[in-house]
Amino acid sequence: MADTGKQYHTKCTGPALKTVENHVNSQAITLYGSCFCPFVQRVWAAFEYLGIPYRVNEVDPYKKPKELLEVSPKGLVPGLKLHEYNPPRGLNESTVILEYLEAIADNTTKRSLLPPSTNPYARALVRLQADHVNRTLVPAFYRFLQSQDTDAQIQNGKDYHAAIEQLGELRALKSGLGLWVEGGDLGLVDVMAGPWLLRSTSVLKHYRGFSLPEGQKFNAWLERLFNHPSFKATCSDEQLYLDSYERYAFNRPNTSQVANAINSGRGLP
Amino acid sequence: MADTGKQYHTKCTGPALKTVENHVNSQAITLYGSCFCPFVQRVWAAFEYLGIPYRVNEVDPYKKPKELLEVSPKGLVPGLKLHEYNPPRGLNESTVILEYLEAIADNTTKRSLLPPSTNPYARALVRLQADHVNRTLVPAFYRFLQSQDTDAQIQNGKDYHAAIEQLGELRALKSGLGLWVEGGDLGLVDVMAGPWLLRSTSVLKHYRGFSLPEGQKFNAWLERLFNHPSFKATCSDEQLYLDSYERYAFNRPNTSQVANAINSGRGLP
Repeated sequence: MADTGKQYHTKCTGPALKTVENHVNSQAITLYGSCFCPFVQRVWAAFEYLGIPYRVNEVDPYKKPKELLEVSPKGLVPGLKLHEYNPPRGLNESTVILEYLEAIADNTTKRSLLPPSTNPYARALVRLQADHVNRTLVPAFYRFLQSQDTDAQIQNGKDYHAAIEQLGELRALKSGLGLWVEGGDLGLVDVMAGPWLLRSTSVLKHYRGFSLPEGQKFNAWLERLFNHPSFKATCSDEQLYLDSYERYAFNRPNTSQVANAINSGRGLP
Repeated sequence: MADTGKQYHTKCTGPALKTVENHVNSQAITLYGSCFCPFVQRVWAAFEYLGIPYRVNEVDPYKKPKELLEVSPKGLVPGLKLHEYNPPRGLNESTVILEYLEAIADNTTKRSLLPPSTNPYARALVRLQADHVNRTLVPAFYRFLQSQDTDAQIQNGKDYHAAIEQLGELRALKSGLGLWVEGGDLGLVDVMAGPWLLRSTSVLKHYRGFSLPEGQKFNAWLERLFNHPSFKATCSDEQLYLDSYERYAFNRPNTSQVANAINSGRGLP
């Protein structure tokens, strides 16, 4: 697989482009996002599902425009600008934003990605799975994609595969959650893990020959997830991801804070 | 500073011992904890503050008794056993447990470590700080304590110092939170960061000659935090911490999953 020096994209394509075009008008919340960023996709799918009005502002995350830095001090996407305040206030970190959107929806649209608040234990089990996604599955994805040495690729591929299987085990033990069960609807863990699973079927397949774990239950879950209207509305065409992640796959000099954290053995920013 | 081969403790001392003695009777929730573990102290202080009844079961975290593994699959403390279910169910991960206790208290004692649910933005800012504690401050503590090479100790000490100062900046920007402000009461970030700040004044001072950042605001906060009844009730005497962390300070072969994750450059378990 030759390094063709492809550049990352700065504008959505496919279904996501249509969604951007439908969200150009001013709203109480502006979402600063980048078309290929999976952390953005989490938040974006949540906006769609929860029915919270928003405007999208597509930014180049490696150029860090001033208006992004105003709402996200490290210049990381996603960032929210909340216009209900004067002056407007900012919010960043995808997991924190997801909890914030849940609270907003609870007061307005009454939709939710979580089990009902009357069942704190069910909510806690969802948060345990979300914690596994953030601390194990996501870092394993980048270690696998960025590793250049064959032995490291084999080991990191196994680790990533194991992290996905472990998520399946966690979910299988705790039924009734999100799209994992037939007849279920989109849940927090679906939107938190979905973007990396999607990129596994394109980016990791193309650059690392990776296959997701097999199994009827798992395949049916992915089928429901990738075709869920709120998730699909945030997906660009496959070529956009293949182009945008080439620099990760060859571990080229990169201004991505995520890529650099993985290379230095530190936690994600 | 010579390695005297001291062993970690398995029983609380000082104020924490009295608290254990007052929580030996059966309750709907059992807290599995270890006397020197800061992740346990977070949850324990929350139980005390929120007024949720609990029983304490002190376990040796490196021996992983079967009853701990039943509620916490990796054998990590803290773990909760919830007797309201038949058979009883388990819960682990300190941050997930804290959210769970918040929800329980919201339905019972009406006490809270968070800003009111009617102010989702204030809650989100607290969760941003909590995220900084988990992902930056806590790993920096262990890297500093475990590093043996002098240059690494200097750099890691600077990083840890910076992580604490950054927490102060985050808090100063967002007033009205926990004990950071005079007249405030215990908050989520206080219980999440407090255990490592306490161990900075004993363990890091003793083994690394470390001093916490100076400043009137910061000193006043620590004074209020360390003397808050709910936090103090979970503190053992200083000698217990000095003994229990010696193996970290000399990076001796250790069955701590936290110590091993730091040594291998991975995220905390």
